[in-house]
Amino acid sequence: MQTELSKRLGVEHAIFGFTPFPAVAAAISRAGGFGVLGAVRYTAPDDLKRDLDWVHAHTDGKPYGLDVVMPAQKVEAKGNQTLSEADVEAMIPAGHREFVRATLAKHGVPELPEGEASGWRITGWMEQVARSQLDVAFDYPIKLLANALGSPPADVIERAHAHDILVAALAGSARHARKHADAGIDIVVAQGYEAGGHTGEIASMVLTPDAVEAVAPLPVLAAGGIGSGEQIAAALALGAQGVWTGSIWLTTTEADLHSRKLTEKLLAATSSDTVRSRALTGKPARQLRTEWTDAWEDPAGPGTLPMPLQGLLVAEAVSRIQKYEVEALLGTPVGQIVGRMNAERSVRGVFDELTRGFERAIDRVNRIAGR
Amino acid sequence: MQTELSKRLGVEHAIFGFTPFPAVAAAISRAGGFGVLGAVRYTAPDDLKRDLDWVHAHTDGKPYGLDVVMPAQKVEAKGNQTLSEADVEAMIPAGHREFVRATLAKHGVPELPEGEASGWRITGWMEQVARSQLDVAFDYPIKLLANALGSPPADVIERAHAHDILVAALAGSARHARKHADAGIDIVVAQGYEAGGHTGEIASMVLTPDAVEAVAPLPVLAAGGIGSGEQIAAALALGAQGVWTGSIWLTTTEADLHSRKLTEKLLAATSSDTVRSRALTGKPARQLRTEWTDAWEDPAGPGTLPMPLQGLLVAEAVSRIQKYEVEALLGTPVGQIVGRMNAERSVRGVFDELTRGFERAIDRVNRIAGR
Repeated sequence: MQTELSKRLGVEHAIFGFTPFPAVAAAISRAGGFGVLGAVRYTAPDDLKRDLDWVHAHTDGKPYGLDVVMPAQKVEAKGNQTLSEADVEAMIPAGHREFVRATLAKHGVPELPEGEASGWRITGWMEQVARSQLDVAFDYPIKLLANALGSPPADVIERAHAHDILVAALAGSARHARKHADAGIDIVVAQGYEAGGHTGEIASMVLTPDAVEAVAPLPVLAAGGIGSGEQIAAALALGAQGVWTGSIWLTTTEADLHSRKLTEKLLAATSSDTVRSRALTGKPARQLRTEWTDAWEDPAGPGTLPMPLQGLLVAEAVSRIQKYEVEALLGTPVGQIVGRMNAERSVRGVFDELTRGFERAIDRVNRIAGR
Repeated sequence: MQTELSKRLGVEHAIFGFTPFPAVAAAISRAGGFGVLGAVRYTAPDDLKRDLDWVHAHTDGKPYGLDVVMPAQKVEAKGNQTLSEADVEAMIPAGHREFVRATLAKHGVPELPEGEASGWRITGWMEQVARSQLDVAFDYPIKLLANALGSPPADVIERAHAHDILVAALAGSARHARKHADAGIDIVVAQGYEAGGHTGEIASMVLTPDAVEAVAPLPVLAAGGIGSGEQIAAALALGAQGVWTGSIWLTTTEADLHSRKLTEKLLAATSSDTVRSRALTGKPARQLRTEWTDAWEDPAGPGTLPMPLQGLLVAEAVSRIQKYEVEALLGTPVGQIVGRMNAERSVRGVFDELTRGFERAIDRVNRIAGR
């Protein structure tokens, strides 16, 4: 499965795998794909350094990349000064805090033990945190730097290019893709409506060729709805130079969701069991539908706050829900392909099924085309 | 482009084209596809008869089909008696009528001339109307009968099969597709989120293989997001036995939208310019986003009524908006591929571009697969 882009990056298959888990990222690269470690979970640069060390030691010299989150719109006080997390916390209305407290109480979610900080932090969404991650990342021979929100700042693109790193950015529309191209990025990840995490309204079937046309000759990776080899073949038929996968790796044996119940929920979910909700970050992100997302959609509630306020507001709550595995509220970002994630398998097992399914799909369309 | 289904129906290409326009349906069949005439616009059986006569005379003996709309849930009074249009009209709250009146007044939409009935009627959505259409249709050698809402009643399926007519039904989820299969239909049209008209939440990239797996060995047609040969190749890679297209024919020279301004709006729209709204029928249907759809989404408004009340409520308003071509309010059901409908072309021109694009996409995936 070779495209210009996969050749340029030196990978066997044009399958990019985004994951928050170092063991999964490394295994994807070892299997012949391109593993991309998501950095949003890391608040301390040293933690990221430790995990990049691990990935580097376990990829057998195969290429890998890093995904950071730098919001296009910064939260700034008047006069452009940088805001601390505490400044941003202070912007959260008391009514919203009370709604979080009451929703957790209704479901009997225990408090975190005295002195235990929230493990799930949203600070990775803030530019200053992303920049400290980049200071670490540029010490590693990463081949790709992706930004999940907006175009990266010009100086970051320059710095990446100086290190021979390709820069990718996620786009939800042709207009958005063109903006990235104008900013000087190298790869557009066209993130369809069906994708897990932040998505726009346009489905991959329409968005992929839209983005390809909008930024040609820049390469486009199709994201959203890609969990089988047939879907890879479809994305490549639409003009993509590869696929950007994410959800499919969440239920691999190498993944560590820290919750057996969450893994079971993912394995049981159908493609109708996700929702595009602002509950987690303040921007629409597809995730498992739970009583937590329902509460934020309830017209009787206060509704969500804009990014990054919503993320800060719910960070501790999400930690508590995860720690105590409160089933009704337990969720995670995941795409509509969750319906096909029905068994735990190794990364290698999933990867091999992707490439086999791709070959089957090519056989199929060739038969139909009479070739 | 030959699948088992296209062979069974005797068409050259597995491209099904749904259209309210007899001239378009006939031209699709003549071009080597399968034209399907939408019957929802017809209130008088004689009008349908006249247009089916025309289609039959203009298909050069090629096969064609008919699409009717029989809602899965009937509006019934207590005791199961059949309701007339007047009975249903009486269920509409006065506040909703006032909202329609005020919205039209705000945009200066003139009244219809004295004695001119609303041309756009919603009665085609009611089962008794659909049944009178079927009485006409069974006199023609149609090869396919599609139902746009739910499974057709058992007696209709039986009657179709007695006439050697295949029965198709639209589905928005695997569960929905299985229900149709259990009801005895022959073909599932998997209608993705990106489609024009009534759609569910699941995008074609995920829904198509979901439906294929759910009803195998029954054939699935992919609908939603199909407006190019590349998208056809993608749908077939996903396991579909053909594609069900609709929007793409709206801006052909054979189409008659009765409004130059509407055609211009469609040609100018991008894939971001549609919305899935209940404004037209009471069920979520994708259409051009307009100030009319915005008004129904406005939390300050009364919101929409359930099907078929909403359709009856807005029927006259839609006629007035169309007759006077009130630009801000003028819309039509259309899918996200409206972004690629940028020039008026003949049905034959569009069709040939679909088959050429399909061949290009097959070339492309074969190159990537190293074949």
